[in-house]
Amino acid sequence: MRAVCVIGLGLIGGSVLRAATAAGRPGWGATAGADDAVRAGDDGYEVTGIEDALRRAATEDALIVIATPVTAVRDVLRKIAWHAPEARLTDVISVKDAVDAEVRSLLPGARYAGGHPMAGTASSGWAAGGADLFRGSPWAVAVEEGTTLDAWRDAAALALDCGAHVVAVSAAEHDSAVARISHLPHVFANILAAVGADGGPLALSLAAGSFRDSTRVAASEPELVRAMTEGNRVALLDAVDDALGRLGAARGSLASSGALKTTVDGGHAARGELDRLSDGEWTRSTVPLRGDRDLRKLRDLGARGGRVTALTEKAAEVELPATE
Amino acid sequence: MRAVCVIGLGLIGGSVLRAATAAGRPGWGATAGADDAVRAGDDGYEVTGIEDALRRAATEDALIVIATPVTAVRDVLRKIAWHAPEARLTDVISVKDAVDAEVRSLLPGARYAGGHPMAGTASSGWAAGGADLFRGSPWAVAVEEGTTLDAWRDAAALALDCGAHVVAVSAAEHDSAVARISHLPHVFANILAAVGADGGPLALSLAAGSFRDSTRVAASEPELVRAMTEGNRVALLDAVDDALGRLGAARGSLASSGALKTTVDGGHAARGELDRLSDGEWTRSTVPLRGDRDLRKLRDLGARGGRVTALTEKAAEVELPATE
Repeated sequence: MRAVCVIGLGLIGGSVLRAATAAGRPGWGATAGADDAVRAGDDGYEVTGIEDALRRAATEDALIVIATPVTAVRDVLRKIAWHAPEARLTDVISVKDAVDAEVRSLLPGARYAGGHPMAGTASSGWAAGGADLFRGSPWAVAVEEGTTLDAWRDAAALALDCGAHVVAVSAAEHDSAVARISHLPHVFANILAAVGADGGPLALSLAAGSFRDSTRVAASEPELVRAMTEGNRVALLDAVDDALGRLGAARGSLASSGALKTTVDGGHAARGELDRLSDGEWTRSTVPLRGDRDLRKLRDLGARGGRVTALTEKAAEVELPATE
Repeated sequence: MRAVCVIGLGLIGGSVLRAATAAGRPGWGATAGADDAVRAGDDGYEVTGIEDALRRAATEDALIVIATPVTAVRDVLRKIAWHAPEARLTDVISVKDAVDAEVRSLLPGARYAGGHPMAGTASSGWAAGGADLFRGSPWAVAVEEGTTLDAWRDAAALALDCGAHVVAVSAAEHDSAVARISHLPHVFANILAAVGADGGPLALSLAAGSFRDSTRVAASEPELVRAMTEGNRVALLDAVDDALGRLGAARGSLASSGALKTTVDGGHAARGELDRLSDGEWTRSTVPLRGDRDLRKLRDLGARGGRVTALTEKAAEVELPATE
């Protein structure tokens, strides 16, 4: 099994290192966070300086996993270019188009496919992570024009070893989707929390489960939320505009006719789609993987809600929603 | 202990009947929902026609609890006016100003104080309820100009017997607060679900915990959500306008400077206030209750985030946030 070298040992990177080594891979890491480095070392993991970690990755042909905030990516890529210019490389950052462009520009020799595990908590840092964080979760692995089967397989195999299932997706489609289902929910949670707190201590003292649930992610580290949402600006603006249009329409309808039928019925039906998708039946099949072009089949499958659940030498085991 | 007569045996009414009888009170109920009536009867509770239930309430001087959707309140009040015009009366409906006005108009002889338990699930009906639904939750009990200590104590004692703590509040302040911490979260959940589903099966297949949590209440019965939100139109419009302003400002900042600092920092601080309030220390004291005017002290305490945790013959045990 291929070794992993994880750069950044916060919630996500720390969980990747734990999950990958728990699955039997050799693994080591480096981090700019002094606390995370000490804690990871105390927990028995190998933590070195970033240069040493990267040199060792080059020597052992390990998969380098970038798990820093998006704002630190350029700096890390420059270091990789120096120590491991043809590295096997993936990342676990929540925007894909911008990272992909940076890698092409700074590290053209890398064997790269971007990744994004769709799991997390409102807490951050090594101590908040765990080997089971990704179990049963989706993990996007990007298929771009130049993505090779070899590089994609490296990233996808890591995701599967961590207990996730893999959704093949283009970087742009990924960014547009996560703007809607991850970044906009963060913006909404922050706005709801503020509107609630504007109601003073009385409003907060009456807050029940619905308010707690819908503002939970507002407890996340502001720096990380900003890096994530601001880093996906174009796609997020699109999602915010969609939300503004819908909220304005709800306001207009409530003010004029007093009715919220369109909003409530539409939201209920949409949430029903989500539940049907996650609780429903799946149709299984096998997609042969003979060359880079076969990745397009997996990407088409991802666009239809499908996912990869296992990889063999020559094929991917896949599932599609049976209702599809 | 005073008997309770619960009209409406859905999630909330069914849970009130279970909790009140579990606390040792005599109790019976009536409901227009045939399914709920059968299930409650099967579970060993006394369910009769509404006329019989109300006549018995008049005979035994029971506390009548209206637990129907807000749209059915007028009809129920007319029946009470016929069978128990001087009833001890409360309700568990999520808007208070409108219900208060209906009671004054249709049932001027009632000994009424409105209530609203801040607990629930996305499911509805008798089967979804339980005796523990209200344990540890806030339960608003309204203090209006004409509210008597006797009537308020009846409603508050029921809340305490159900395991809740009591927040004394004016009907208008209540409606404004719940618009922010309950009704707007419902609107937001519906809009988020719709924006997510607009991303197609790919977006839904990538949805993780943050999306599930923030759209959870969109799974609620649409009729109930509409009754609740549309029934609090004026206060909800105010909260929606606040949210529209904040979302528009976030959009503008993201588009012009690329930053979401104000939104993210503000939301994080607001969520912190909520956590400090619920996890923090409380200062305990006793408020003597000698007459109707003493209810104002409890209402002032509620406006500062305080709550009533027990009632004795002559006093209320209260708690205030120690940070206050």
